[in-house]
Amino acid sequence: MQFRFKIVKKSKKSWARAGILETPHGRIETPAFVSVATQASVKSLTPEDLKNLGAEIILANTYHLYLRPGADVIKKAGGLHKFMNWPGPMVTDSGGFQVFSLGWGKVHQIGKIGWFPGYEEVRPPREVGPLKLVKITDDGVEFTSHLDGSKHIFTPEKSIKIQEDLGADIIFAFDECTSPLADYEYTKKSLKKTHNWALRCLKVKKKREQALFGIIQGGEYKDLREESTKFISSLPFDGIGIGGSLGKTQKDMFKILKWITPLLPEEKPRHLLGIGRPEDLENCVKHGMDLFDCVWPTRLARRGTLLIKNGRLNIGNSRYIKDFHAIEKKCGCYTCQNFTRAYLSHLFRAKELLYYRLATIHNLYFTLGLMQKIRKDILVGKL
Amino acid sequence: MQFRFKIVKKSKKSWARAGILETPHGRIETPAFVSVATQASVKSLTPEDLKNLGAEIILANTYHLYLRPGADVIKKAGGLHKFMNWPGPMVTDSGGFQVFSLGWGKVHQIGKIGWFPGYEEVRPPREVGPLKLVKITDDGVEFTSHLDGSKHIFTPEKSIKIQEDLGADIIFAFDECTSPLADYEYTKKSLKKTHNWALRCLKVKKKREQALFGIIQGGEYKDLREESTKFISSLPFDGIGIGGSLGKTQKDMFKILKWITPLLPEEKPRHLLGIGRPEDLENCVKHGMDLFDCVWPTRLARRGTLLIKNGRLNIGNSRYIKDFHAIEKKCGCYTCQNFTRAYLSHLFRAKELLYYRLATIHNLYFTLGLMQKIRKDILVGKL
Repeated sequence: MQFRFKIVKKSKKSWARAGILETPHGRIETPAFVSVATQASVKSLTPEDLKNLGAEIILANTYHLYLRPGADVIKKAGGLHKFMNWPGPMVTDSGGFQVFSLGWGKVHQIGKIGWFPGYEEVRPPREVGPLKLVKITDDGVEFTSHLDGSKHIFTPEKSIKIQEDLGADIIFAFDECTSPLADYEYTKKSLKKTHNWALRCLKVKKKREQALFGIIQGGEYKDLREESTKFISSLPFDGIGIGGSLGKTQKDMFKILKWITPLLPEEKPRHLLGIGRPEDLENCVKHGMDLFDCVWPTRLARRGTLLIKNGRLNIGNSRYIKDFHAIEKKCGCYTCQNFTRAYLSHLFRAKELLYYRLATIHNLYFTLGLMQKIRKDILVGKL
Repeated sequence: MQFRFKIVKKSKKSWARAGILETPHGRIETPAFVSVATQASVKSLTPEDLKNLGAEIILANTYHLYLRPGADVIKKAGGLHKFMNWPGPMVTDSGGFQVFSLGWGKVHQIGKIGWFPGYEEVRPPREVGPLKLVKITDDGVEFTSHLDGSKHIFTPEKSIKIQEDLGADIIFAFDECTSPLADYEYTKKSLKKTHNWALRCLKVKKKREQALFGIIQGGEYKDLREESTKFISSLPFDGIGIGGSLGKTQKDMFKILKWITPLLPEEKPRHLLGIGRPEDLENCVKHGMDLFDCVWPTRLARRGTLLIKNGRLNIGNSRYIKDFHAIEKKCGCYTCQNFTRAYLSHLFRAKELLYYRLATIHNLYFTLGLMQKIRKDILVGKL
């Protein structure tokens, strides 16, 4: 197998590490932010744009691609790399999170436009009704397509089969992602399922050229997180994902990571699933994480929020209509090098397609740049 | 003034000419297709994209930019070139066509998603009610903003003032664009107004570095078109636009051009306003036209229709879901060099932002390439 993870520097001040992850489609310097290409496209960007931004690795979603265009289409295209013309390293998730979004995510008002751990500015989760679009059994998950209402089943075996058809370099075990509102009893039962599914994924996975990562669940319960960390770490996975509820605040998240990290095998890469706000990244790296993925920077961009050193800039604010400065003075991104806040404000107000690309470029550049800085700080012993 | 038009080759077989148009922001080889950047953006493309496509000149709309972000904002930015970071030659229209769109265009069901001369596949124009959003007087036009319902007045003087604030290299006289349903009496009265407005535009235009083009109107009436051609040609305009109704079919358009072209001064560039389907371009060049602008290729792209040598390809057709060929085998555009019909079909169905850019790139490349071929054919005596 062409998958190898090498730690090149360990921090003396924290659990941070700088590493190099080798995959069949190239190497990634870690810690790294994985840009999200949900439907085989980082929204509004070409592969060239991504290369220019310094993006080394992207993540596509098994659930979305299974429903459209279908794993058969992508397999016939020669895999996701060829289908979307992305030559570099790629990850697919297992579908577990999307099943959660359709299920508890909807019922608890979390997910697409809702709440993330530590995103306190968004309405907190609350129970609004029973599961509707998803039925979770010991065998797998029955769900209703968000596209056309058709019925489907994901099992661990099926998730792996689809991910093999998609052909990413890193694939994930099928898990049940639990909600921040799940109680201890539910989480405990769910964890048993996730662990059983992890074994089934390992059993059926065939392709040597793909790395399989297991996922630690256990919600915000110390004994369950520890149990899951030990169990998943004991299995022959190529890397470890940390998924599920990381509590209700950023503080909760770090508390949970403090339970997990000391129990993790040092030699395996660790992917903190779904986390990627600038204010989370450095601290999560200090807590021993190597990989991150999140729609936050790109989704935020499309909604008018641009990342800057001192926080965020809402381009919809009328103060920017006549502001002829770049988003950020010293930013080296294509958008800041070529366009003003006034122009972006205009494009945003006019809903011009170009806005979405320029804003996405800025927010991704910011996030990827932050990761590069964090890595450098580890290498020089600053972090 | 830095504006100069030089004819480098005249066809012996037709009225076609190849020329070079020099402007303060660079030179254009004519005949040329002018890409439309309605709201200071060719939808989905950056200036770099346009340069890579070989686009030499773009056109922005006075009406749209006056309403949003406002001519004052663009003036303060240092003009449209700086505002949108387009360093090359640029045109603005006078607002006359948009006033028509709001007025007779709406009433006669022509315009944004309706009918163009020769576009017989679209529902033909028909009268559906009285003018509502527009009041046309001898002095100018009162209109209601499509954005917020606010009231505004355009006069020839105001149109020129706005266009001077915008700062394009080529600006247009304010005219009344007539509908294909306008009768002889209406068109005759309207023409008197357009001619009067042409004189007023010439009188107030101050900036030496901008070229002012007059617009020939007269609908589909031979004597009125001839009268207008002679009158506009007799005035000290830097170039000539041909606007208004060009009849109801492509055949009508060429009939009307046959009346106009022999009466045009040879030394001035001629811009056929709003025309730009592949099937129109070569024949219009043969009828003596030098410049074209049209939203058709880019709008068509966004709606899923891709231009190919033998016609059009509707990417929404299910036959393309598993078609792993480029849109067009020998096409040199970025989209065809990098992506398949299957991927474009997927992006289109998923309404992914990237689709709009890739499709726009292809259709503009096709259109600009066609113009280059036409010019070459003139130069070598083939056309």
